[in-house]
Amino acid sequence: MKKFEEQLRQFAKLAIQTGVNLQEGQGLMLFAPIEAVRFARMVSEEAYKAGAKDVHTEWLDDELAVQRYMYAPLEFLENVPAWKFHARNEMVKDNYAVLNILGENPDLLERVDGTKVAAFMKSSGKGLTPYRDYMMKDKMQWSIVAYPTVAWSKKVFPDKSIEEAQEALMEEILRISRVTGNEDPNAAWKAHNKQLHLAADYMNKQQFSKLIYKAKGTDLTIELPKGHIWSGGSGPTEAGVEFNANIPTEEVFTMPHKDGVNGTVSSTLPYNFNGQLIENFQLTFKDGEVVDYKAEKGEKALKNLLEADPGSKRLGEVALVPHKSPVSQSGLIFYNTLFDENASCHLALGKAYPTCIAGGNDMTAAQLEAAGVNDSIMHEDFMIGSADLDIDGVKEDGTTVAVFRQGAWAFEFN
Amino acid sequence: MKKFEEQLRQFAKLAIQTGVNLQEGQGLMLFAPIEAVRFARMVSEEAYKAGAKDVHTEWLDDELAVQRYMYAPLEFLENVPAWKFHARNEMVKDNYAVLNILGENPDLLERVDGTKVAAFMKSSGKGLTPYRDYMMKDKMQWSIVAYPTVAWSKKVFPDKSIEEAQEALMEEILRISRVTGNEDPNAAWKAHNKQLHLAADYMNKQQFSKLIYKAKGTDLTIELPKGHIWSGGSGPTEAGVEFNANIPTEEVFTMPHKDGVNGTVSSTLPYNFNGQLIENFQLTFKDGEVVDYKAEKGEKALKNLLEADPGSKRLGEVALVPHKSPVSQSGLIFYNTLFDENASCHLALGKAYPTCIAGGNDMTAAQLEAAGVNDSIMHEDFMIGSADLDIDGVKEDGTTVAVFRQGAWAFEFN
Repeated sequence: MKKFEEQLRQFAKLAIQTGVNLQEGQGLMLFAPIEAVRFARMVSEEAYKAGAKDVHTEWLDDELAVQRYMYAPLEFLENVPAWKFHARNEMVKDNYAVLNILGENPDLLERVDGTKVAAFMKSSGKGLTPYRDYMMKDKMQWSIVAYPTVAWSKKVFPDKSIEEAQEALMEEILRISRVTGNEDPNAAWKAHNKQLHLAADYMNKQQFSKLIYKAKGTDLTIELPKGHIWSGGSGPTEAGVEFNANIPTEEVFTMPHKDGVNGTVSSTLPYNFNGQLIENFQLTFKDGEVVDYKAEKGEKALKNLLEADPGSKRLGEVALVPHKSPVSQSGLIFYNTLFDENASCHLALGKAYPTCIAGGNDMTAAQLEAAGVNDSIMHEDFMIGSADLDIDGVKEDGTTVAVFRQGAWAFEFN
Repeated sequence: MKKFEEQLRQFAKLAIQTGVNLQEGQGLMLFAPIEAVRFARMVSEEAYKAGAKDVHTEWLDDELAVQRYMYAPLEFLENVPAWKFHARNEMVKDNYAVLNILGENPDLLERVDGTKVAAFMKSSGKGLTPYRDYMMKDKMQWSIVAYPTVAWSKKVFPDKSIEEAQEALMEEILRISRVTGNEDPNAAWKAHNKQLHLAADYMNKQQFSKLIYKAKGTDLTIELPKGHIWSGGSGPTEAGVEFNANIPTEEVFTMPHKDGVNGTVSSTLPYNFNGQLIENFQLTFKDGEVVDYKAEKGEKALKNLLEADPGSKRLGEVALVPHKSPVSQSGLIFYNTLFDENASCHLALGKAYPTCIAGGNDMTAAQLEAAGVNDSIMHEDFMIGSADLDIDGVKEDGTTVAVFRQGAWAFEFN
């Protein structure tokens, strides 16, 4: 990986400057896989150079996660002590930005008991409520970037040697993250953000009351709540600091009405739920709720997700991504949502971002509920886009406008 | 390091069974350098196999520590937020055992500002008061074992290649920790603990009122408080679980009277204070307090230590180690207190272990003070033993008994 040294440094700067856009005197919480140690140290140094008062790093090890699910008793996983979450909950209150370096082995939890994983995720989700609330309301800057760990690289490129696979995935990550080929990746992201903002502005002007999805295996109507807001690319925190929550990102997204989803939708890419792959699955909705489902692979994991809480059966996000995005162009399946969701139109089961509705950040739980905003401890994206996906937007007066045709925007933004 | 695979596994079992003696259903907090990942995973797995309900691992990276001191503002280091310590303070209350895998680069902080290090240590020391209190009162099991990181190995064996140096230090660690040459290291430790208990019992029967140290550059009288207790090897927690706080350990130790130290003592091994080496130093005491000091190297670090708080100028531990211990036999300087302290008689500046005086765990701060028990946020061992060290014990009636002669116990325990 030596040959990527310079590009990695640029990537680290991109994560700090465009990703979290760290401000002078701010703290940074950094999550990093142990394998990404060289990159994580660069990111930390760039954070300090940008004026960080503190970089608080939590290192992650896939193998210890597997040990936890193999050995820890279910009772413990169902009742993870609150002190495990305290630091994360407190540091967002202290205005720390959060940067996640992602590199999880997509097959990580294949051999472990899904019930235990679900129990731990549920109990952690509860414990991290303040943290997730800050994040989902964009109260501080947060971002996710990727690093090619060995296991992930071998999953994407099973026929290559370890070294070749890591280099190949590193190359894809750097290209798709707009580091490669750009002398100034931060400037490239400025231009990219502008395009996404134009698309979101267009959708906001239309104020569709529903979207109708049609593709092979999909016939779905999604109602959009009054006052819904489409966003894409960088967005501001409450305090007005512009940041990019995902690197890469190609999506323009809003929230559906939690009770207004009807019909059937089919997945078009494998979906990785906490290290368990769910493939070729179909969900049928009635009045917002999943009333039927099946999956060729990982049906039990899908069941665990849907049954996590009442809100995990309903949608919290609807996102539009042209099927010809840089991710799609790679022709690869990444087995990682950060990449695969940017290959394709997608939906999310679970909590909706309150930022996706006018005044959402200031609404009480009851007001959000009344406005049709879904709540859950989950927020899980799954991919439904394809080259044959058509989407129509329907306005309140019944006017129908083509939004997507054959997997691409049906109009130009300029 | 592949060749140590089997011995590392034995070492991991030793750490869990003899070190912390983890109990069924207990949690373990594990601190590990990233470089020790293979060993740390074994330790974690052995903990789970011993019935751990949870292994909570915090990974440490030397380079991030250096970045902190290079870049973080002094004001932050002086006021580290409380949430950073919350998990450690809470998990001891939840009866977690603590295991530290040590592998710090002895020269780590050579290039950084000692003022910043001292500020961070002081502020962390305060924040971790409950945690340290649990540990120093042996309210739960805790232990330290070592792993040869690259930087540490190269410091001990500067002329060897990286790989050879790591292997050489691994060999020393495994030998000194009684893994090598013992089919059942846990049994070997049982025998070793028995010897240390016999020595401590002997000293307890004597109940000396003071010790007189004589060697080249040393003429020191140390008063021992009434009711002081000598300990060595394994000891019980409050709840009666036997554990070994240090692997290796060769010492028999108690507390001095905080106001009863007079004379001069010279160091005999380099002392590593938070990654800064202090070498060939001399301390002069009057009524317990250091009134004069000098050091050939690292005098500024010594000054920072002595001025950390009022208690860091006084002694909190006096420990007896034969100069012919397995550590001494190696003929090496380890630049690491866990090893070097077990080569040699030593003293500690700072907090005394309340377990070293009868009823200490139940005394209030005022009662401890009145009994002559030193308090500080520091507890820093430094080595004063040598082949020419003589120690006399003086009883209340004036009887004088030879305790050490030429660096060795002056009697046999059987």
